[in-house]
Amino acid sequence: MAAEIRQAVAAGIIVEIESMTELTRVASAGEELGLIPQVAVRVNPDFAVKGSGMRMGGGPQQFGIDAEVVPDVLSAAAGLGVDVLGFHIFAGSQNLNAEIIAEAQRRTVDLVTELAVHLPGELRYINLGGGFGIPYTEKDQPLDLDAVAANLHDLVEVITSRFPQAKPVIELGRYIVGECGVYVTQVVDRKISRGRTFLVVDGGMHHQLAASGNFGQAIRRNYPLVVGNRVDEAADESANVVGCLCTPLDLLGDDVALPPADIDDLIVIFQQGAYGLTASPTAFLGHPAPAEVLV
Amino acid sequence: MAAEIRQAVAAGIIVEIESMTELTRVASAGEELGLIPQVAVRVNPDFAVKGSGMRMGGGPQQFGIDAEVVPDVLSAAAGLGVDVLGFHIFAGSQNLNAEIIAEAQRRTVDLVTELAVHLPGELRYINLGGGFGIPYTEKDQPLDLDAVAANLHDLVEVITSRFPQAKPVIELGRYIVGECGVYVTQVVDRKISRGRTFLVVDGGMHHQLAASGNFGQAIRRNYPLVVGNRVDEAADESANVVGCLCTPLDLLGDDVALPPADIDDLIVIFQQGAYGLTASPTAFLGHPAPAEVLV
Repeated sequence: MAAEIRQAVAAGIIVEIESMTELTRVASAGEELGLIPQVAVRVNPDFAVKGSGMRMGGGPQQFGIDAEVVPDVLSAAAGLGVDVLGFHIFAGSQNLNAEIIAEAQRRTVDLVTELAVHLPGELRYINLGGGFGIPYTEKDQPLDLDAVAANLHDLVEVITSRFPQAKPVIELGRYIVGECGVYVTQVVDRKISRGRTFLVVDGGMHHQLAASGNFGQAIRRNYPLVVGNRVDEAADESANVVGCLCTPLDLLGDDVALPPADIDDLIVIFQQGAYGLTASPTAFLGHPAPAEVLV
Repeated sequence: MAAEIRQAVAAGIIVEIESMTELTRVASAGEELGLIPQVAVRVNPDFAVKGSGMRMGGGPQQFGIDAEVVPDVLSAAAGLGVDVLGFHIFAGSQNLNAEIIAEAQRRTVDLVTELAVHLPGELRYINLGGGFGIPYTEKDQPLDLDAVAANLHDLVEVITSRFPQAKPVIELGRYIVGECGVYVTQVVDRKISRGRTFLVVDGGMHHQLAASGNFGQAIRRNYPLVVGNRVDEAADESANVVGCLCTPLDLLGDDVALPPADIDDLIVIFQQGAYGLTASPTAFLGHPAPAEVLV
């Protein structure tokens, strides 16, 4: 780990520290290299964001430094020869409620404003986190991006007026790429068992764990899926789409309305561009990994 | 897939078929090769096994051929030039109740006895499945193997008297290797956030997904874990053991009683010999895979 930290410091990367331990590690790397490391402090806020798929701030957390402790850490940093540029607050991910995201961003700017008075220099970096969700199920409504944008526009003016040198940052992984990926798998068998239709595909949870409902979902819900070569046909059959692994966990679609599908048809699952293949146990049960194709 | 089936048939492997489709595929491979394929029929029983971690029989299932349909499939097989040796019934996995396992095995033998009259030849193969569980949590009591053995002893006598040529088979993956594997990961940070102690380790859910509670568990429970270099010390601290990934899912121990641990200490998690590394998303978030060592 020490080698990676030295590389980051040598490259002039802003290292976000999440504890006093990390601060001292970065400071040591700077001392060894004869450089002033650039750091930001990830803050565990004193507020929580409701409605996130994953809550990552508020209360006791493994992430960040508790807001009330940050002034002490900044004092320590001043004596360690590191340059603290600013703060990072990431309150939660996969949120579809624009007003909650907007409120979290406003509270983040307020908290950063409070904390910035403890910086020895100017605030130059403010990372507002991400949390922009994408719809995964029929019940999900897409995020109202205009509402988020209007709020952000106002906030950037506030930031600029208070901190002329600050660079605001947001991080949108899933929101940018999540909807760009589709997973295609082929039906290898069609079975009817006691009145239920099963479409067995040549892929499964080892390729798309989240689509099987086994990646942090408290309640399993189907990802959007279609029969790719029958999109114009009426969805007048209900089927279970199951993977080829020998576990009942390997369920890609539970009781899904689909056009009657058969062997060689293609099942297409959407929203697989983030937390898809890389978040899946590709070695599970020794089946081959899928091909990944950039179109 | 056709190539794999041909290889299996050419090698004289007993291919367990789970549908008419699979039967015809195996028969075609035999025809192409000029061989009589050896097959067994996986049966979806007309009973369910309670108390299994995973139920895999009874009701509508993706696994096997419904018991009531098996006679028709056997008739079809007779005309297809395949040799049906017997049956496979796997009702569920990870069961810790010896009496339920014993009952499932008795019912399996009864069902196979009913189905065997539809075989053109002698019954030569009876796969009773597995399901022998191992304890994962403090509440779990180890399986009473003597009780299972006594029942199996009686059943083998029954099988031998009814079907002199039958080879009884049980499949015990997890039961044999599950307790043989341990996962060792090192503490890289110790943090206290709002009264809770977090031990951050250099591994996590990308190495041991099941231990994080994200592999089919409806309710997350801690796997047994210790501080490997402090096993003789009193467990008088409560800590959360968290992995190094940036997701709150990466939780290896929730509120665990441990000796006070610090950076460089080793966290050891037990029961990792099955559904461990291979069932984990090792590419998730780009962290290194662990070393696997045979001791």
